[in-house]
Amino acid sequence: MVPHLTTSLTGPLRELERQVLDRRPDIEHWFRNQWIEHEVPFYSSVDLRNSGFKLAPVDLNLFPGGFNNLNPDFLPLCVHAAMSAVQKICPDTRRFILVPENHTRNLHYLQNVATLKRILEAVGLDVRIGSLIPDLTAPQEVETSAGEKLLLEPIVRKGNRVMLEGFDPCAVLVNNDLSAGIPSILAGLEQPVVPPLVAGWSTRRKTQHFHAYDRVAEDFGKLIGIDPWFINPVFSQCGKVNFAEKEGEDCLAANVEFVLNEIKEKYAEHGITEAPFAIVKADAGTYGMGIMTVKSVDDVRNLNRKTRNKMSVIKEGQPVHEVIIQEGVYTFETVNDAVAEPVLYMIDQFVVGGFYRVHTGRGIDENLNAPGSQYSPLAFESDCQSPDCSGKPGMAPNRFYTYGVVARLALLAAAYEVEALVERASALEVKAANA
Amino acid sequence: MVPHLTTSLTGPLRELERQVLDRRPDIEHWFRNQWIEHEVPFYSSVDLRNSGFKLAPVDLNLFPGGFNNLNPDFLPLCVHAAMSAVQKICPDTRRFILVPENHTRNLHYLQNVATLKRILEAVGLDVRIGSLIPDLTAPQEVETSAGEKLLLEPIVRKGNRVMLEGFDPCAVLVNNDLSAGIPSILAGLEQPVVPPLVAGWSTRRKTQHFHAYDRVAEDFGKLIGIDPWFINPVFSQCGKVNFAEKEGEDCLAANVEFVLNEIKEKYAEHGITEAPFAIVKADAGTYGMGIMTVKSVDDVRNLNRKTRNKMSVIKEGQPVHEVIIQEGVYTFETVNDAVAEPVLYMIDQFVVGGFYRVHTGRGIDENLNAPGSQYSPLAFESDCQSPDCSGKPGMAPNRFYTYGVVARLALLAAAYEVEALVERASALEVKAANA
Repeated sequence: MVPHLTTSLTGPLRELERQVLDRRPDIEHWFRNQWIEHEVPFYSSVDLRNSGFKLAPVDLNLFPGGFNNLNPDFLPLCVHAAMSAVQKICPDTRRFILVPENHTRNLHYLQNVATLKRILEAVGLDVRIGSLIPDLTAPQEVETSAGEKLLLEPIVRKGNRVMLEGFDPCAVLVNNDLSAGIPSILAGLEQPVVPPLVAGWSTRRKTQHFHAYDRVAEDFGKLIGIDPWFINPVFSQCGKVNFAEKEGEDCLAANVEFVLNEIKEKYAEHGITEAPFAIVKADAGTYGMGIMTVKSVDDVRNLNRKTRNKMSVIKEGQPVHEVIIQEGVYTFETVNDAVAEPVLYMIDQFVVGGFYRVHTGRGIDENLNAPGSQYSPLAFESDCQSPDCSGKPGMAPNRFYTYGVVARLALLAAAYEVEALVERASALEVKAANA
Repeated sequence: MVPHLTTSLTGPLRELERQVLDRRPDIEHWFRNQWIEHEVPFYSSVDLRNSGFKLAPVDLNLFPGGFNNLNPDFLPLCVHAAMSAVQKICPDTRRFILVPENHTRNLHYLQNVATLKRILEAVGLDVRIGSLIPDLTAPQEVETSAGEKLLLEPIVRKGNRVMLEGFDPCAVLVNNDLSAGIPSILAGLEQPVVPPLVAGWSTRRKTQHFHAYDRVAEDFGKLIGIDPWFINPVFSQCGKVNFAEKEGEDCLAANVEFVLNEIKEKYAEHGITEAPFAIVKADAGTYGMGIMTVKSVDDVRNLNRKTRNKMSVIKEGQPVHEVIIQEGVYTFETVNDAVAEPVLYMIDQFVVGGFYRVHTGRGIDENLNAPGSQYSPLAFESDCQSPDCSGKPGMAPNRFYTYGVVARLALLAAAYEVEALVERASALEVKAANA
């Protein structure tokens, strides 16, 4: 089943899709050359919004947690892509520790870990699960939502290596977004760690990602001759906010105004009659925590206590001080009248699948990946690399291909971003060594 | 549907499959390292024989012609693998000329060309078909077995480039096995040509491939601790044979005797009670032409005229002077009592699918890929990289995985072989330049 796009497809997105299909050789050629110059992240997922007149990424996760939601028919795609990723990053690897999130009560997440483990095993790796749960002293068996058993084992540090009981891995694959900071047990290892620890949310910032995405969208816009705004949400940021203490409200108001005005101008330029809105979210965060929709400056003035509490902490109880104010992109795709948002999964440079978050209880201007947001996943029924170029825009394979292209643009931005993070970390190390 | 293996699986193959499954991390690790050191062919297909006690490649095609026989569900695997292949070999490519075989009456082959074209287009290449048909002066439309239209265009040479009318390609992909020799129009091009022209049958020899395979099988046997014979057919060769003139019969008889004796010894060593047989085939050839089954030395003495005629020429009317005498491996897989032989397809380092040649009218010791051999293809129902290691040997995913491993061993041998061919060609060029 393919979601219905509630806007008529006569608008700019139809043109975007046509442009993407027509310029496919140039687009794929451009990507090939980008991946020679830039190291592609091991894996990632991208949340897209499709408003019919705009198709844009709104978040990129470097520790994707929904492999279990992909169409099982396309798991072989994941396996081949992971073979490629492993060969590029650590060909001499035979044994992986997979380091998941600590929340063992999220059985769907555990199913993601089981799926990821199975993919890596199909690549031909021995995989065991090394947990960061602080009070885990002995192996603990947990059961996933599909009833699979997983053994979580305590990670043991010996010198500059980590291991599990009787298992000395060649590499560490992190599936924990490190919101609580870089765990000292994983710092300074001689074993390769992918993604690099600086890609975790203690050092990563959404605004850095979208700065990088600005460059990518601009280059891509030039390549295929489109206004990059059609694939790029306007954004701004505030660096010193404290919702609990009502600090930073002026900065927030000014930036919300700036973003809303930018959207208004673009809407006017392209004849779009919808009401602009913006999303305020924690600059370092995930799991849809610390997010609010704003439609006017008033919405960030005089916030009530409940909203201030909601916005002030995110995952692992981390306080929010930096926020991104991002153009809200309407979600105009629906499945049986429920709002549906595409999420694309990538391993290495390959789009390996995707699914829709389908949610009846949410609006077209809300975030569907929020706590308590019990969306049901709807796996893409086909892959994202088989467009029918003689067919019409809006056909499922063509829409999926276009999604895949935009998702890969976000992936490229993530590559720029991680490069910069790694560079900065090395520079800091050199500085510290010379101090 | 998975063919039934008519031997009981209690013999050595069950052990081989168990060994392969158990040593998967070592095997995949070994392959990863091999592909760092050796350039993998762009694409290939491998004919396997599975006798229940032995599983071995008997031929490797560097210009595979049956992409249309693969399970269409796995075409995305082909696309991703081709993305990888294109990126490795010629990332700066946007336009490909695809050069097919000249036989436009084989509609199934044309469907292969159409499938290949679609795969490359999904990679994001502009693809047009450049034909070597000598009297083709204007574009000619042909129809494939599935009713698709293909436009064959005459190749035009300008200096050191080839092009089609209004189409200057960045690279040439050859799907013509060059049995008739290297066409001068493709020689010495500045555009990349894949596979290299020296991989065609005018310079390639099966015996060179199997010499390379000897090395691979030996290394692999050491890696997982098996007698390499279980995956490697014994072979020998005769260099000066003329079936029409009854020349070279003594050489043939001596080598048939040698091969049959080797098999007898191995059968005795492993307690196998089947009757040994050998296959005599043209050392440079394809399409199953010039092939005979021999069970004793007498079978090559006093050949009748019909057999001599059959053996003396192969495709494109090329005379046969060199032959390979290869251990015959029984085909003990059947589908509804018809003999079934697996053929595996690879693009880049990835096994992208496979099918069975199913033939009711042939014996278990005959070649199913022969002229007039109207086998029906039965696509593999699952991929070759998703074994269920906790499951039993003989289960479909495990059998397919083992097939994939053996096919990749043959692929590695082809990589060695093509490296040697390219090296020899360069050495000859240097020699010619210095002469």
